[in-house]
Formats: sequence, structure tokens, C-alpha cells
Amino acid sequence: MRTIEKISDLKAIIKSQKVSGKSIGFVPTMGYLHEGHLSLVKHAADENDFVVMSIFVNPTQFGPNEDLDKYPRNLDGDMQLAEQAGVDVIFLPKVSEMYPEGYKTYISVEKITERLCGKSRPGHFRGVATVVCKLFNIVEPDKAYFGEKDAQQVVVIKQMVRDLNMGLEIVPCPIVREADGLALSSRNTYLTKGQRNSALVLSTSLFHARDMIKNGERRVNAILDYLKKNISSEEAANIDYIEIVDADTLEPLNVVEKRVLIALAVKFGTTRLIDNVIVEV
Amino acid sequence: MRTIEKISDLKAIIKSQKVSGKSIGFVPTMGYLHEGHLSLVKHAADENDFVVMSIFVNPTQFGPNEDLDKYPRNLDGDMQLAEQAGVDVIFLPKVSEMYPEGYKTYISVEKITERLCGKSRPGHFRGVATVVCKLFNIVEPDKAYFGEKDAQQVVVIKQMVRDLNMGLEIVPCPIVREADGLALSSRNTYLTKGQRNSALVLSTSLFHARDMIKNGERRVNAILDYLKKNISSEEAANIDYIEIVDADTLEPLNVVEKRVLIALAVKFGTTRLIDNVIVEV
Repeated sequence: MRTIEKISDLKAIIKSQKVSGKSIGFVPTMGYLHEGHLSLVKHAADENDFVVMSIFVNPTQFGPNEDLDKYPRNLDGDMQLAEQAGVDVIFLPKVSEMYPEGYKTYISVEKITERLCGKSRPGHFRGVATVVCKLFNIVEPDKAYFGEKDAQQVVVIKQMVRDLNMGLEIVPCPIVREADGLALSSRNTYLTKGQRNSALVLSTSLFHARDMIKNGERRVNAILDYLKKNISSEEAANIDYIEIVDADTLEPLNVVEKRVLIALAVKFGTTRLIDNVIVEV
Repeated sequence: MRTIEKISDLKAIIKSQKVSGKSIGFVPTMGYLHEGHLSLVKHAADENDFVVMSIFVNPTQFGPNEDLDKYPRNLDGDMQLAEQAGVDVIFLPKVSEMYPEGYKTYISVEKITERLCGKSRPGHFRGVATVVCKLFNIVEPDKAYFGEKDAQQVVVIKQMVRDLNMGLEIVPCPIVREADGLALSSRNTYLTKGQRNSALVLSTSLFHARDMIKNGERRVNAILDYLKKNISSEEAANIDYIEIVDADTLEPLNVVEKRVLIALAVKFGTTRLIDNVIVEV
């Protein structure tokens, strides 16, 4: 596995891979890798000749009161995990490499970024879309892999790729969970033992909501009432949002139909966790 | 010359050119072609194996009270001129092809789009950056050619390409003028005979300002005073702005140094003309 810090060096490697006809799979991350990230790498390695992973804690997607400075990092561990999982090149740009002095360009995906996580994290998806566009232009992947835990991110990136006529395929990959149901997240490391235990209410409630739909419930309000009540019953849980929306457009629904996304963000202490299930009826 | 309306068809042609190792030159236009556009094609044909021109009157770069609906068009004439000048493929997308229902993504280049033309045309450069990014992703050119008459546009596009790590070169080409000095523009067709005559004050004054600098004048205010006074002396001229700025950053200057852009926008009746000179000291 090669480690690259400069954009120009990575572009040269990509060019030589392209010339020899190799397909490129790309896994953008913010590091502190867990099995969720590694499952993306496995998909990328299965479906492409050459796998690039980026690790970049992107400052433009963090709000002023968010956890940019304390975002967990473990570069040595990450490098080992990435290599074992099949990454060919790991891209570790500095902030000044990605956003040099005088940087001025930002990408906005309208409407679908104003809801769900976008409501409590204004500017977040602008930062995500911008850095992902930059990374796509640098890596020129045939396919890029994103975890479905960030369900809104997947929808936003797909919309950007479609709207800007980018020539790559976005491959969403299923959420990876601990044995007890907790969705893997680098931010889980912030949780105390008690908070981690309380946080199980998220997956348990989402799975139950999915079962309600499977058993015939179609009233969005009835499902939301259950979710809010059950999650609020955990004293440590502080609900940011719980919503049931069209999985493709993120439009709110009154009645469950087609493919719905049940998504939530809940704080435990200062740690904000997100989780979701997608249900097809 | 082939005529293409669908993005997917153009992408297929581009792919086959790339596979056979051909370099691609791109000239984006809004049509109603004149010698200015054709000079861009000549540069593109000189420096590349394959030349693509787009003709697309891009609605997102026009304000609500601007001339989108009456923007001059002459497709048959354009096709003939393009073919004679050496265009290999002419791309004529419909608005619904470029902005299908549900379109949501826009590119903003901050600060440098707020001044000069950006001040009187809010949203203009957001529309320009967005459509140019889309066209670059569709055409994947090695080089793209822009006229220096739209000096601010050149700076904005260069900034976007640099910031978003796009893999192409922007080639600015000199303003083409009528024998009497009037800068070529599709909008010149709007002018009455009297207005066209009055409009000569723009190039005459800009050339004189350039001579002032060549003869040693370094005080920006003195040059601006001359320009405002001389252009105002034409009764039909209604000044939008006259500015002297750093040619690369568009920052305002007090003293002429390095490479300066003297840029102006002046209305004659309802027709807004722009012109500029770049002077190096």
C-alpha cells in the first residue's frame, strides 16, 4: 500500500492506472476506521482493479460548535487496517493541500440538504458535497463507496453526481452493526459505558418500527409516536430528530409507501448519534 | 461536423476519442457566433486533436429582469460558421437535458463573484460556474477556451478549476474587436446605429487609459476620473461600473502595479455592454 499526501502525486498514480486500463474504486473516509469502513473497502476491492482510500477530517463539514478538534484519530491503526482490507493507495492530504490560501469554491445541493441532519447541522452537506467533488476530481473513480448509515449523505452525493454529470457510480453499502445492534461509528468512542448501553434503544426501536411496517402499519404518525415514546424512555437520550421520509427524495410522508427511510439523530451527553433503516413495502 | 443534443451521446463520442488518445479542446458558447467565438475555435483546433463547441443559452446565469428570452439566436448560421472554423462536434442540449426536473446542485465561487459584473448581476456567476462545471464533466476537455472580454468570467472559472481540482487547462484568448475598436459581442445586435456609434467611447477611453499608464500614470483615481468623465460625455452612455483591479484576484487597487484589469459595464438604452483592457507595468 502506498501513502500519498500530495494531490499531484495521487493524480500521477491515477493517470498511470487509467492508461493501463485499470478500474478504480474509491472509499472516502475521515479515518478512525471500523468494520463499516472496511466493508466499503471489501466491496471496492471486489468490484475494481485498484482501490484508493482517503482519510481526511474535512473542516468545512463541521459547524463552529461541533467536534472537529476532538474528532478521533488513529492513523497508525488505520493504515494497518486499510492495507489488510485491500487498499492500494491511501490518500492523506493536509488541510492546506485541500483548501489552500484563497480557496473560494463551494457546492450546494438545495432542499434535500435542509432537512434531517441538515437542519441541526447547517453548512454540513455543503462541506460534504464540496470535499467529495474535489476528491472525485482527484481520484477519478469508476465507483465510489458510501455507508448507508449516513443515509442523507448518500442521497446528497447521488444528487450532486447526477446534477453535475460526473462520470462515476455511487455504491451505497449496508450499515454494519455491533452484535447487539449498535451501528458502527467513529463517534461511538465518545460514549461512556452507560451511554453506550442506552444507545441500544436506537437500533432496537428502529428494528421494531420496521417490524410494525412489515406487520401492516402504514400510518407514519403511529410509527413516529412509537419511536419518540420508546426512545424518550431512555433517560440519557436527547432526540434531535426522528423522521420517516421517501428514501430517494427525503420528502416527508404521511403514509408508508414504496421505499421509506426511517432516520434519527439522538444525543447521548454531548455525543450525537445517527441511525436509520430503509424499508420497502 | 456532428450535431449532438443528448449528454449520453456526447459522452460516448468523448470516450471513443479518449480511448484513441485524442486531446480535446472545448469552446463553450451561447451561440450567435462572431469572430470572437471563431478565434477561440481556431486556438482550440491548433492545440488539440478534436474540437467540441457547445451552444447553450444557459437560463441559470440570467437574472429575472435580464435578456434571456430575447437573447439573439441564429442556429443555422452558427452551424455553418462552426463547421468552417474547424469544430468536430457541436453540442446543442435542450434546457431540460441540462436541468432536468428535480435539479438541485449549484457551484458558488465566493468573493470574486460579488464585485464588477457580479454586483449588478447577482447569481450570474453561480449560473456560469454551474453550467461550465457540468459541461467540463460532460466534455472532459484537455483545454477549454474563453474570451478575455468576459474578464471576470475567466478569473471565476480559473478559480473554480483550481479549487475543485479539475484536470484541465483554461486558455484565455484576446478580445476580438471591430476595425473601429468596438469589442465583438452577440449583444451588439441590440444597438441602434446611434448607440453603436456612441459605444465606441468605451474602447477609445480604455485605450487612452492604457496609454496613460504606459506614459507613467500610476494613480488609479486619476485614471478612473478620466474614464468616468470621458464616457459620461456620451449622452447615451449610462455607466454601470468602471473599475481598476488586480487582474488575477480582482481586488481593488489604489496604485497601478503588476497586472491590472481596467473593466467597465455601460448601458446604451437597455443594452448593457462590457469591455476591458489588461495592462502590465
